[in-house]
Amino acid sequence: MPGNTIGQAFTLTTWGESHGTAIGGVLDGVPPGFPLDIKKIQQALDRRKPGGHHRLTSARQESDQIHILSGVYEGKTLGTPLSFLIYNTDQRSGDYDPFKNIYRPGHADYSYTMKYGHVDHRGGGRASARETAIRVAAGAIAHQILQLSFPTLQTTAAVIQLGTQKLSSTWLGHPYPENPLFCPDEKSTQSWTPYLQDIKNQGRSVGALIEVHVKNMPSGLGEPVYDKLDADLAKALMSINAVKGVEIGEGFGCVTSENGYDELSAETASKHLTNKAGGIVGGISTGQDIICRVALKPTSSTPQSRKTLTKDEIPVDVSITGRHDPCVGIRAVPIVEAMVSLVIMDHFLRWQGQCGSKFRK
Amino acid sequence: MPGNTIGQAFTLTTWGESHGTAIGGVLDGVPPGFPLDIKKIQQALDRRKPGGHHRLTSARQESDQIHILSGVYEGKTLGTPLSFLIYNTDQRSGDYDPFKNIYRPGHADYSYTMKYGHVDHRGGGRASARETAIRVAAGAIAHQILQLSFPTLQTTAAVIQLGTQKLSSTWLGHPYPENPLFCPDEKSTQSWTPYLQDIKNQGRSVGALIEVHVKNMPSGLGEPVYDKLDADLAKALMSINAVKGVEIGEGFGCVTSENGYDELSAETASKHLTNKAGGIVGGISTGQDIICRVALKPTSSTPQSRKTLTKDEIPVDVSITGRHDPCVGIRAVPIVEAMVSLVIMDHFLRWQGQCGSKFRK
Amino acid sequence: MPGNTIGQAFTLTTWGESHGTAIGGVLDGVPPGFPLDIKKIQQALDRRKPGGHHRLTSARQESDQIHILSGVYEGKTLGTPLSFLIYNTDQRSGDYDPFKNIYRPGHADYSYTMKYGHVDHRGGGRASARETAIRVAAGAIAHQILQLSFPTLQTTAAVIQLGTQKLSSTWLGHPYPENPLFCPDEKSTQSWTPYLQDIKNQGRSVGALIEVHVKNMPSGLGEPVYDKLDADLAKALMSINAVKGVEIGEGFGCVTSENGYDELSAETASKHLTNKAGGIVGGISTGQDIICRVALKPTSSTPQSRKTLTKDEIPVDVSITGRHDPCVGIRAVPIVEAMVSLVIMDHFLRWQGQCGSKFRK
Amino acid sequence: MPGNTIGQAFTLTTWGESHGTAIGGVLDGVPPGFPLDIKKIQQALDRRKPGGHHRLTSARQESDQIHILSGVYEGKTLGTPLSFLIYNTDQRSGDYDPFKNIYRPGHADYSYTMKYGHVDHRGGGRASARETAIRVAAGAIAHQILQLSFPTLQTTAAVIQLGTQKLSSTWLGHPYPENPLFCPDEKSTQSWTPYLQDIKNQGRSVGALIEVHVKNMPSGLGEPVYDKLDADLAKALMSINAVKGVEIGEGFGCVTSENGYDELSAETASKHLTNKAGGIVGGISTGQDIICRVALKPTSSTPQSRKTLTKDEIPVDVSITGRHDPCVGIRAVPIVEAMVSLVIMDHFLRWQGQCGSKFRK
Repeated sequence: MPGNTIGQAFTLTTWGESHGTAIGGVLDGVPPGFPLDIKKIQQALDRRKPGGHHRLTSARQESDQIHILSGVYEGKTLGTPLSFLIYNTDQRSGDYDPFKNIYRPGHADYSYTMKYGHVDHRGGGRASARETAIRVAAGAIAHQILQLSFPTLQTTAAVIQLGTQKLSSTWLGHPYPENPLFCPDEKSTQSWTPYLQDIKNQGRSVGALIEVHVKNMPSGLGEPVYDKLDADLAKALMSINAVKGVEIGEGFGCVTSENGYDELSAETASKHLTNKAGGIVGGISTGQDIICRVALKPTSSTPQSRKTLTKDEIPVDVSITGRHDPCVGIRAVPIVEAMVSLVIMDHFLRWQGQCGSKFRK
Repeated sequence: MPGNTIGQAFTLTTWGESHGTAIGGVLDGVPPGFPLDIKKIQQALDRRKPGGHHRLTSARQESDQIHILSGVYEGKTLGTPLSFLIYNTDQRSGDYDPFKNIYRPGHADYSYTMKYGHVDHRGGGRASARETAIRVAAGAIAHQILQLSFPTLQTTAAVIQLGTQKLSSTWLGHPYPENPLFCPDEKSTQSWTPYLQDIKNQGRSVGALIEVHVKNMPSGLGEPVYDKLDADLAKALMSINAVKGVEIGEGFGCVTSENGYDELSAETASKHLTNKAGGIVGGISTGQDIICRVALKPTSSTPQSRKTLTKDEIPVDVSITGRHDPCVGIRAVPIVEAMVSLVIMDHFLRWQGQCGSKFRK
Repeated sequence: MPGNTIGQAFTLTTWGESHGTAIGGVLDGVPPGFPLDIKKIQQALDRRKPGGHHRLTSARQESDQIHILSGVYEGKTLGTPLSFLIYNTDQRSGDYDPFKNIYRPGHADYSYTMKYGHVDHRGGGRASARETAIRVAAGAIAHQILQLSFPTLQTTAAVIQLGTQKLSSTWLGHPYPENPLFCPDEKSTQSWTPYLQDIKNQGRSVGALIEVHVKNMPSGLGEPVYDKLDADLAKALMSINAVKGVEIGEGFGCVTSENGYDELSAETASKHLTNKAGGIVGGISTGQDIICRVALKPTSSTPQSRKTLTKDEIPVDVSITGRHDPCVGIRAVPIVEAMVSLVIMDHFLRWQGQCGSKFRK
Repeated sequence: MPGNTIGQAFTLTTWGESHGTAIGGVLDGVPPGFPLDIKKIQQALDRRKPGGHHRLTSARQESDQIHILSGVYEGKTLGTPLSFLIYNTDQRSGDYDPFKNIYRPGHADYSYTMKYGHVDHRGGGRASARETAIRVAAGAIAHQILQLSFPTLQTTAAVIQLGTQKLSSTWLGHPYPENPLFCPDEKSTQSWTPYLQDIKNQGRSVGALIEVHVKNMPSGLGEPVYDKLDADLAKALMSINAVKGVEIGEGFGCVTSENGYDELSAETASKHLTNKAGGIVGGISTGQDIICRVALKPTSSTPQSRKTLTKDEIPVDVSITGRHDPCVGIRAVPIVEAMVSLVIMDHFLRWQGQCGSKFRK
């Protein structure tokens, strides 16, 4: 199976170059008879959208209006493929003409050329973060359907570190007021805002650390031994543009910690006293909160001059002006939530297939 | 597809509980006509084997003798499935009788029971690290075949941090003399040995940080957008028992770093001046070294007493005596190498299918 | 993997209900750098289109204009997903209102309701033959790309029996002049035309037998033991609406024949003296012509009155008037060709992945 | 995915050459907690076994003793991969030495060589019908588990035509007394026995027509549009050695029949008055009996002399003496039943995943 599909039982296949006609996706394996709230899907897309209230991120105006083309009839899912697309309306492909024959450092221009020979240089083509809009829409659909079976299930991500700036208090995974920085702590939002503005003014960029919590997670989801729930989360999260690291629970902290376990107890709802494991042991969910963190690198395109090569391997200097984020990581928050929802939905359907009620009588 | 298979074009399916008759694997998609050196596969298994010269790790004597049952004829691969198994000879299942009705903290006893209801409690059953012996054998086969096309390809992993102990010098990914700690630096080996002995004597355990380098990596491997090479590596590495984090290149360090790119230059063989990306941009290999790190949690089973529940949810205290490693992470080094080889082999065959020479004329 | 995708290395995922906004498909695994002739794709769609010169088939005017949304840049494939759609312009959904609460005999209304509960009754929804337009477009793309590597490869299907009417001479698989009946023999075309008109006038319908030949087929394609080339052809062809039987080479004739083999000889280009096997032995192509036949049932919807049930299981009589073919089988000819091209393309990429030139040095 | 795996949710991967150490299989996706009756699996294997009471088929004594290596603990399935093997004990590989450099007509020697270059010539290697023993064991497991949810489900196949000999009465799919010809009608058994003995004495071989009925089939199984239940059955059945044709319900008879539908009625348990469709409409089961037929070609290896080529393309005559069946089709009866059970089990798990009870509240 080529690489544009994720999931086994609930599959998302995406398509589209950032400056082509449109981008889109096909969800297959959608359970039938489910009332779909399209407004909520659009809201999820709007959260991810650059510009708008997120003035510190890219000024591009992507309309990101979802069009559902199949799989829904009279407001309910049919069980057939749910196809949807978003037109590319604010493309300004001309912006990319100067880079047609240049490998932009930090972008996929070089590696794509090594693989494909023929590439669409405009805005990264298929490698553009624009593709992630489709993930967000699909994740919003998965989340809606999951909530039918698990009404209290709640997936929330936030930026917990912006460059060198850490949160002023620990975030425990609860929902927080919307803000352009996806920062779960009001005090930090206030101090991060001028910090990021400075970065932007100086033509620099910074990375971000995002944490995601899944509360009221059902136990028993995940497949040994390769499709472990944490392995599939790692893949789904690492596949997001600019992500360079993924950790679960204690994560890299486990190297210097001791006692690689969480004690069990009948006195807590989750049956465990701590949650170093991040809610997954042996690749299967324990019913505790799932906790993951992902590291996103600084935006590659900044106005600073840098060395590179043309496609004929002539050395040149390049600086990338135009509409760009000082921190691409911020906008990844809704994408992280979406990928987590897609993975849980997929594993829930897989669990239901193999271990569902028909065999439990 | 259920979860015991990894790969799309070069697939490994594994089976076996740690205290059943045997464990084994089936490799499908193996290229035909390849002379297979079984001695090298056995050597890889011996590197992973507990006991022997690795006196600091588990004293279990797993014979780990590979038996190849199909797919090879007159010393050469047939292109048909390559099936192999290892008998479980040193099982001592009785060791696990006390835990039959107890959830061992840090082990998959609880999550497996939540999923399956009926489980094999002996030594973790399917969740045991014993399964990884099959990964090592499969990885050794993949590596041999890859070297036919890429004779200089070299995949080397090492422990670069053991609990609180860091390497005394930076390791650049080169092969190093074999030693029980898979430590690439002789001075560190000497200081780590008494450190780990102390941990063991005190009934404690520590985590480990493993780094892996792939040198002379071909460019152009990896599939956008979900089966990115780094996404597949993240999944493969996170699927290893006790792994809690995976990072590529700068990894989590990217959050506080600046300039999310590597400049290009015609003056280096790799066409790049730095390698913050860890050899993968946009999910596709650049031809630079691939560099990943994985964090492994401390051994869960130690003689220390801990709280837990019986399967009837009665609180009990448990302490796990017997043959156990103070640091399970050490033995993961050959497993990390194996998983990397499997992922590269899979992506090489996928590349060859879609982009191979027939279409390049 | 849900059921709307076919292929492993070259995958087609289709979506769309017959009376929704549009129908479409996503091709993944397309080799990069290939000049795509969109006119040829449109021609293939026009051949399948009802109405037009095919006056004996359905009078519906489906415009079937293909829109390519991604995967092509400056006229050449990118190697990224090739997404395309066809808008549903001549829907007349109101025609189906009378059947909203009725199971139309011979249609999937009943079985879909058993599975999904909630269904789109308009024109069969997802079960409509309209979906096959996407197959035809995808097959035309596969065929174009295959011809780059195999310029003489030729896939031709024809109707060799229409109801009780057989061909007046044996067809050997060569291309033939276009005609509304996809009949490879002019004499038969002349006698079949009034025969079919009579069937139509009487409100009856008949089945059809289609044969397909692949000439200049490469040897060595197909995977033992489940993804045999003939097994994948059987699946692909049986998945076409109204197909009730598939046979290869001698097919069902082999039951009463003797000598289940074809002798080999150095004197023929194909190395064989006969071709009872239909070009596939042990699931792998021999390099001889591939020959398959498929049986298509008579159109289910005719003006004749028949017994059925409402969705509340009340017995009613129903007769389906409106725009319908006396023989749905005829229009399946380009679909059969398309499915064969898709299967060969998929197996060619799989062959190239596992057995391609990199491993043959 | 390479070609040695069948199924999506309930997967069987098989391995093994006919004259290697063993043949085996891995079943993944097995529901947990199911009491497995190994005696019934062995009985299914014994039905397929050549020799024994089937004196008219091959005199080979294959012991076919199943060994289960994983996935079962204390008599119940664990939900983990169920691995099993059968040793090759009666190999007499020397019998095949004369054919080492010869392409045996009707066997896969030529096509395998075209694909793989390097092949195991002994007894057909991977292309041998010996692989089907594993299918039979896996099918017997699937059938046992299906009966837990569907106690009255019954899958029965029979030979309904042996060469030119048809059944003396119509068989309606009911179980019948065991006999060496898998003939459901006692009178035909008596007349077919001397007929087949004559064929054998004359060194000839004949084909067979097998029909399979699934009674008390659940409705709603099957996936539009490519993984239709009939498409998956066609693939599974066409993948059986020597099968050249598959048809469902009326099958090829539909070409000359009229009225491509079955009327519905509340008065029958199946809600239909007839069953031309063979229990599947739009790729989804209706709840009526599933009825398929498969055509198997005559045994390729007979003592008659025939023309062929050596691997150096030198013309030679070859005649294959030794232990061979006059009709390989007969032994395929339990294999057909097994493949049908595997397909139904796979689609049941897929149905349960997408449409199971959790989403029906």
